[in-house]
Amino acid sequence: MPEARHKRRSRRSRGGNTSETSSPSAPAYLTRNIPLYEVLDEEGLVIIENNAETILEEIGIEFRDDPEALDIWKQAGADVQGERVRIPKGFCRQIIAQNAPSQFTQHARNENRNVIIGGNHTVLAPAYGSPFIRNLDEGRRYATIEDFRNFVKMAYMSPHLHHSGGTVCEPVDLPVNKRHFDMLYTHMRYSDKPFMGSVTASERAEDTVAMSKILFGDNYLDPISGEPKTITISLINANSPMTFDATMLGALKVYARNNQACLISPFILAGAMSPVTVMGTATQALAEGLAGIAFAQLVKPGAPVVFGTFASSISMQSGAPTFGTPEPTLVLYIMAALSRRLGLPFRSGGGFDASKIADAQAGYEAANSLIPALYAGVNFVLHTAGWLEGGLVMGYEKFVMDCDQAGMAAVLLRGVDISENGQAMDAIAEVGPGNHYLGCAHTKANFRNAFYRSPIADNNSFEQWKEDGELDLAQRANANYKRQLEEYEMPAIDPAVDEALLAYMEQRKASFPDSNIA
Amino acid sequence: MPEARHKRRSRRSRGGNTSETSSPSAPAYLTRNIPLYEVLDEEGLVIIENNAETILEEIGIEFRDDPEALDIWKQAGADVQGERVRIPKGFCRQIIAQNAPSQFTQHARNENRNVIIGGNHTVLAPAYGSPFIRNLDEGRRYATIEDFRNFVKMAYMSPHLHHSGGTVCEPVDLPVNKRHFDMLYTHMRYSDKPFMGSVTASERAEDTVAMSKILFGDNYLDPISGEPKTITISLINANSPMTFDATMLGALKVYARNNQACLISPFILAGAMSPVTVMGTATQALAEGLAGIAFAQLVKPGAPVVFGTFASSISMQSGAPTFGTPEPTLVLYIMAALSRRLGLPFRSGGGFDASKIADAQAGYEAANSLIPALYAGVNFVLHTAGWLEGGLVMGYEKFVMDCDQAGMAAVLLRGVDISENGQAMDAIAEVGPGNHYLGCAHTKANFRNAFYRSPIADNNSFEQWKEDGELDLAQRANANYKRQLEEYEMPAIDPAVDEALLAYMEQRKASFPDSNIA
Repeated sequence: MPEARHKRRSRRSRGGNTSETSSPSAPAYLTRNIPLYEVLDEEGLVIIENNAETILEEIGIEFRDDPEALDIWKQAGADVQGERVRIPKGFCRQIIAQNAPSQFTQHARNENRNVIIGGNHTVLAPAYGSPFIRNLDEGRRYATIEDFRNFVKMAYMSPHLHHSGGTVCEPVDLPVNKRHFDMLYTHMRYSDKPFMGSVTASERAEDTVAMSKILFGDNYLDPISGEPKTITISLINANSPMTFDATMLGALKVYARNNQACLISPFILAGAMSPVTVMGTATQALAEGLAGIAFAQLVKPGAPVVFGTFASSISMQSGAPTFGTPEPTLVLYIMAALSRRLGLPFRSGGGFDASKIADAQAGYEAANSLIPALYAGVNFVLHTAGWLEGGLVMGYEKFVMDCDQAGMAAVLLRGVDISENGQAMDAIAEVGPGNHYLGCAHTKANFRNAFYRSPIADNNSFEQWKEDGELDLAQRANANYKRQLEEYEMPAIDPAVDEALLAYMEQRKASFPDSNIA
Repeated sequence: MPEARHKRRSRRSRGGNTSETSSPSAPAYLTRNIPLYEVLDEEGLVIIENNAETILEEIGIEFRDDPEALDIWKQAGADVQGERVRIPKGFCRQIIAQNAPSQFTQHARNENRNVIIGGNHTVLAPAYGSPFIRNLDEGRRYATIEDFRNFVKMAYMSPHLHHSGGTVCEPVDLPVNKRHFDMLYTHMRYSDKPFMGSVTASERAEDTVAMSKILFGDNYLDPISGEPKTITISLINANSPMTFDATMLGALKVYARNNQACLISPFILAGAMSPVTVMGTATQALAEGLAGIAFAQLVKPGAPVVFGTFASSISMQSGAPTFGTPEPTLVLYIMAALSRRLGLPFRSGGGFDASKIADAQAGYEAANSLIPALYAGVNFVLHTAGWLEGGLVMGYEKFVMDCDQAGMAAVLLRGVDISENGQAMDAIAEVGPGNHYLGCAHTKANFRNAFYRSPIADNNSFEQWKEDGELDLAQRANANYKRQLEEYEMPAIDPAVDEALLAYMEQRKASFPDSNIA
């Protein structure tokens, strides 16, 4: 096992850490073997469902600046007044039940990395959308396409992330209206894991589809259904409360019509964008999700969709968003349960925090946020790794720390081995009272995979830690990410595909002027 | 509301934090309103129970250097060979079912702080047993009685800890054979919350009982049962694997005979002291717990006992203990379920980590450890606050951080308000699509208690955080603990009781020479 030997050797180096890379044995996604956790019983969930239907019928949802969307609702029988769409009770739920798939496969160019989204599966994806990056060497600064490539490389290398993500950071050194080309190309060329599409304009969604077609070539259409394979998944946020805007609707329509998946997610900071209570926030989020997902099914029956929520709270003193606090945890469990009752895959997560730096606040808050996503049965965990400062910053060290947590998540979801070897009665009999297990046959046979091994945690003695320079976790993660980037090897790609992707980008970029107006 | 005003004022100060002190409104203990989480089904739990009975009957448990304990087992019908006690299948379970209470009250000298241990209640207690302390100013050094007093003061002031704990740190400046007097006196005088007894020798357990009698005076005996009230709870660890030693057995007997509670806890580092598998570790821990708890019931039928486990893993590379990893989490859920099936209160927890300092590793690991204790329904969470470096160090800043997490735990366990106010339909109707909730009537009526407020987390803007000195969580916690110690006010005590406690200690201390041999 040359890999194991390599790991042991590098672990002796300063900081005690080793970079870990995706190996063929790493699972493409996780499959849950532990039960789901719920916080509300049937009575509570039914109250929320009924209240959400009341919102849809009596208050309605606004679909702004998109006459086509209003037409679609009118034709479906909704009551459309101006941009306000009031939907009869039960209508959305029925449309969803009749059309939306309960799980689907998102294809990767390396088919061993295809992920199943839904059911008892969990896909862990990096953080999304930060304009800034932070690392110990440079502090906080605007992100560039170089940073973007770095995070795609690291997500590719992590055995614990199953997805390359989307806007892993905003490459602000590129023009706003063209950076999606470079982002898409980076995901396609520097990784072979599945990735997310552009949602900032419908033309950019069209570019996403076009480049996906080039990437997959003859493999683009499913040989059985004749439909396009689902190659991208894209983040469609509601503008809470109870509003969808033309940008999001435009992207949604492009993706739905091309059989590409959408995460339809109310983005809520409770107290500002929803009521200050858990039930109120969940109710509004359900109404928004129902409207958005039913709309996707009206656009293209059967379009792959994921019900998502991003719900955190604000500080009622300063208005600033807070993370890792208990109220959003309760919302999360409720939304996951409501999504299951709709028969939909569910997105939420990940390693959220409000901290500016990768300190203890970041650690507590990220763990407080990620763990409930695991127990809740979240199918697509966006923002698993890298999130700092309420999402404004993608942290290099934080990314490494969160990947480590993702590795622990895999062990947790695997659950308990109840086989005879798991029961270990031979070991207990062999060792007996007062002795130790270090050398017994069962330990020798099992120790390699017995316990999760963190590449960055320091479990050494105080004296050893002192000798190693009294490093904190961020410093060890700093060394780890740099080694990862040194060790990165680009996955192979058909040169003709690469050339075609570059040609498409070149032609498209040349066809309209640069602009930094979003 | 002068308290709220005070909080707002101090929150403006540098670091944005405020010390929070126990107010009469803080609950004496938590009552769970959210469901329990389990990882194993009936089949798996029954396998463990059967295997544990096989261990008890075929391998047996050693009761070392305590002839009286062996006599007790012989009289009960066990097969005693040397110090090995083999117990017929089902015997321990039967003794426990017939005698051990499923919950009990631990009395505090301030009866408003009495705690119920068992059922759907959770009591959070500080960390226990560290010879060292750490703070940002001094680094790591041996603990003193002054440190001990400081942690008792802070546990008293925290609205989120329900218990004063026991050996919150080892006062190594005092003689080993007399420091229990000063520890007990500190709990009794500097706090009015319930506390733990000395277990390092049976005479020290006797001193604990004697001082408790003085503290409670005429209130010592329960007026209805005529039995001593349960005033102390004490930590009796098994020497895993499958061994109890005379020190622990001696203390256990004293406490059981005086109706004082014992936490009977296998202390296991899996891989060294138990098999490397989750099932194997749980099986051995159950066998040890069954033997210890049944023994307590043989000593004194009806003695209040808590089934406990402390189970973590070791690094299979270095042998060092690790914390916050997934395997001990799985063990914890299993043990909690097994304890419920025995009808016993359960102890585990708390904010464990292997980190030397209060960095991100400490944050992740502590959250990874505490959260499962909450979902598992742990009734007595030892080590909730302060734990660093695998328990070798009590951290001042870590203590403050963990108390903050304990505050979040209270909100989580309270669960979801499904009342009309919780549903917030009026707010949703009032605000409508595209607007915000900040000024609506429902928000105004509810914002004060809407979301958990951390006294130390920084949720401010990057610019504000920079202006405030770019502090990390540990630095803010440093300022917080110092302010707490400045603001501490000793609870009142009857001067005659205080004098009697001091006189008892003086007389006892004078009656034998100092010694530092344990």
